[in-house]
Amino acid sequence: MLSHIKIILVETSHPGNIGAVARAMKNMTMTELCLVSPKLFPSADATSRASGADDILAKATVYSTLQEAISDCQLVIGASARCRTISWPEMTPRECAEKITTVGYHQKVGIIFGRENSGLKNHELDLCHFLLRIPCNIDYSSLNIAAAVQVVCYELFVSAGQQSPVIIGDRGKTPKATTLQMESFYTHLHETLTDIGFIHPDKSKSIMRRLRRIYNRVHLDVKELDILRGILRMSQNNQKDKI
Amino acid sequence: MLSHIKIILVETSHPGNIGAVARAMKNMTMTELCLVSPKLFPSADATSRASGADDILAKATVYSTLQEAISDCQLVIGASARCRTISWPEMTPRECAEKITTVGYHQKVGIIFGRENSGLKNHELDLCHFLLRIPCNIDYSSLNIAAAVQVVCYELFVSAGQQSPVIIGDRGKTPKATTLQMESFYTHLHETLTDIGFIHPDKSKSIMRRLRRIYNRVHLDVKELDILRGILRMSQNNQKDKI
Repeated sequence: MLSHIKIILVETSHPGNIGAVARAMKNMTMTELCLVSPKLFPSADATSRASGADDILAKATVYSTLQEAISDCQLVIGASARCRTISWPEMTPRECAEKITTVGYHQKVGIIFGRENSGLKNHELDLCHFLLRIPCNIDYSSLNIAAAVQVVCYELFVSAGQQSPVIIGDRGKTPKATTLQMESFYTHLHETLTDIGFIHPDKSKSIMRRLRRIYNRVHLDVKELDILRGILRMSQNNQKDKI
Repeated sequence: MLSHIKIILVETSHPGNIGAVARAMKNMTMTELCLVSPKLFPSADATSRASGADDILAKATVYSTLQEAISDCQLVIGASARCRTISWPEMTPRECAEKITTVGYHQKVGIIFGRENSGLKNHELDLCHFLLRIPCNIDYSSLNIAAAVQVVCYELFVSAGQQSPVIIGDRGKTPKATTLQMESFYTHLHETLTDIGFIHPDKSKSIMRRLRRIYNRVHLDVKELDILRGILRMSQNNQKDKI
């Protein structure tokens, strides 16, 4: 039921935590683990803490960038312990689980957990459609990463058990764009905005970030993305005609 | 909100797990940790894994028996990974959290987690009013003890946040009997049953266990307990008159 969801750990420092995450996942029938630049992997510590979930570790995929890890994902959720000043759609693990288990199997979902000490960086959160925040003690809010994964996977497992197959299989709908498709769109958008003189190539960072937030938040499907790409192409053509 | 609940760990082998449990508790605003015959405590491993929750470790109480640890508890819940053959009321963490957060602050609650490898023994489960089972992968069901505590404390925290103060404070009700009061009742019951010749002192184990299950399941309040004790006293007096 949960095979369309992958757990992505970014720059994990302690290999023991990777093992504990694998165990937490397997306990809840989840199997796909992605590691972005882990400090040490594979490792005996990871295997020991996995305690029988070493099959998850054996097939874990290691990436050098988060972008690669989520390139096939159509729904990207970032776990965040801190209250962020930026306004970003935020969900509890329960809401998140309901969302994920109702979008259907055919949508690839990535849930990202950040570094043990500092979590996810703002530019990494920018890649997400939603933030996930585990309700907890405001004076002591940092859960161990494996504990956080355990809570989230537990909610997913409980929620999947409550969904009827009818709700799960909404295959008729237009699929959401993958992260790879969105990145290609952002490249195209940046190019177009530069072409039309809206942004200067060297000073485009802040405006591009705002645009990313907007388009990630609306969670485009592939047909909508096609329309937007069409608009960009048209703008570029017009610009070329002008020159 | 959750200060009336204590987490009790029975014969924990790895001190690191005790630390991780303390962290999981503090993340969810819980503070009272009891340890029954831990293999090693205090320990540097526990403090290291507690990661800032060492205040919980510092005030943790160590007991030599589970009976002592739960003697002040009025509601006792045992975590169990296995499907038990004995029929015993079983709850999910969510049901358990709803139950606990609605019984009110003034009721002392103990939640017991067993050994890392073998969980709780049957005679320990007999001391419980309910069993708690975390929904999980039937082919790989053993959660790490700290992960299990994390899930349960998380559900308690979420549930406490959803309760209105009105529901929480049902102080008017007759309090439930504590484990100590129940143990005293069982001693009295055993004595009486022996006096009246219903059981032979050497062969009473099985029947006493069945009786314990019955009375633990009904979850007596102190007034009901008084009535039962009165009946026992009366039976004993009648018996003495006969002799």
